[in-house]
Amino acid sequence: MTAFDAIAFDADDTLWHSESLYANAQAVYRSVLRPYARAEISNRVLHETEMRNLAIYGYGVKGFALSMIEAALEVSEWQISGSEVQQVLNVAKHMLRTEVELLAGVAEVIAQLAETYSLMLITKGDLAHQEAKIEQSGLKPYFRSIEIVTDKTPQSYAALLARHHIEPSRFLMIGNSLRSDILPVLEIGGQAVHVPYAITWAHEHVDVPPEQLGRYHELEHIGQLLALVEHLEA
Amino acid sequence: MTAFDAIAFDADDTLWHSESLYANAQAVYRSVLRPYARAEISNRVLHETEMRNLAIYGYGVKGFALSMIEAALEVSEWQISGSEVQQVLNVAKHMLRTEVELLAGVAEVIAQLAETYSLMLITKGDLAHQEAKIEQSGLKPYFRSIEIVTDKTPQSYAALLARHHIEPSRFLMIGNSLRSDILPVLEIGGQAVHVPYAITWAHEHVDVPPEQLGRYHELEHIGQLLALVEHLEA
Repeated sequence: MTAFDAIAFDADDTLWHSESLYANAQAVYRSVLRPYARAEISNRVLHETEMRNLAIYGYGVKGFALSMIEAALEVSEWQISGSEVQQVLNVAKHMLRTEVELLAGVAEVIAQLAETYSLMLITKGDLAHQEAKIEQSGLKPYFRSIEIVTDKTPQSYAALLARHHIEPSRFLMIGNSLRSDILPVLEIGGQAVHVPYAITWAHEHVDVPPEQLGRYHELEHIGQLLALVEHLEA
Repeated sequence: MTAFDAIAFDADDTLWHSESLYANAQAVYRSVLRPYARAEISNRVLHETEMRNLAIYGYGVKGFALSMIEAALEVSEWQISGSEVQQVLNVAKHMLRTEVELLAGVAEVIAQLAETYSLMLITKGDLAHQEAKIEQSGLKPYFRSIEIVTDKTPQSYAALLARHHIEPSRFLMIGNSLRSDILPVLEIGGQAVHVPYAITWAHEHVDVPPEQLGRYHELEHIGQLLALVEHLEA
């Protein structure tokens, strides 16, 4: 018998690049707004707008696009031109059209683990966009189940594991976000592996509570996961 | 034994008002664009923009909002002002904030059927918005399972029923859209009840193929559903 009934992966910035697309889009947004405000102001207004809208938009590119347009109106004091709004809109559409680019090592690790384990994919964001990315990734056949959730909280993980009849202690979650992938899983008694991405969205920054330090595994690179799982099985 | 292993309901315009909110938003969009174009032009460009964007945005208010802004830019030949863009954005945010309003009779019918049947809710649209509406509706406890899908096709219904181990012939779907709720269910051998809403989105209009005529039930009002189900059980 193996140690885990399911090994689950986050998707954006764990299996494929995502935050880098947001960073590129924000660079375009700042350059469109250069006639109206300094980059720090444009950034700050966008971040505040996103946080204010999160409860009604949820996660994902479409909400981000609407927040960019709203922030651009505010930053420009409603002086922004139609063609400048169009540039902001175009960069968001470009994000949705960009083909998924897997992180190095992901394809091999997923194929290998799927031989022994029941794999799950657990992601938040826009339903249509996440499904499109999963299709494009070529990884879909390796996942026993795919769960797209509005938010990743101890409650949402607990409900999901209950629905799949998985004991939290026999559940391993892998992801780049301490806030969304690691801490809530530890809280319900699961195990977790943190693999940071090059960039972290400000909203996902979190201080690890002292009692959770050392209770999860940290890898530099997803290619190290096979060795870690073998070690946990030993 | 009852005739159905599951009775499933569509949500928008079947359990609660939705299309009326889109119609109101479009009225605001047209009035904002009155200085630039006649209502027919504004409507046509919006519809074309929505259809073109459906593949990347999917269904729901956020994609609709982005399409309204794109259409407003085009209709105004990029002459639209910042405060006019803000008005279009505001109407979309208002839609997302509007509390769900159940259709007459829904609460009673759902409560009553839940005593005998396993009820499902199957809806498409924005994940975050649909979940918020389901929470607000007060109906959540009556549904054994809630499925938010990107599109309603014979394939997506077949996959969903397989996952729940439901025989299509023992599945009854209730909804307002012939295109999304009725025809794909008939196609996989399920049973269906059409309850039209006062307004139908152009995209959901469909001609019923002759061979499907008379193969589904048509009600004027969801309050008639209990009597129909009793009749089907007799």
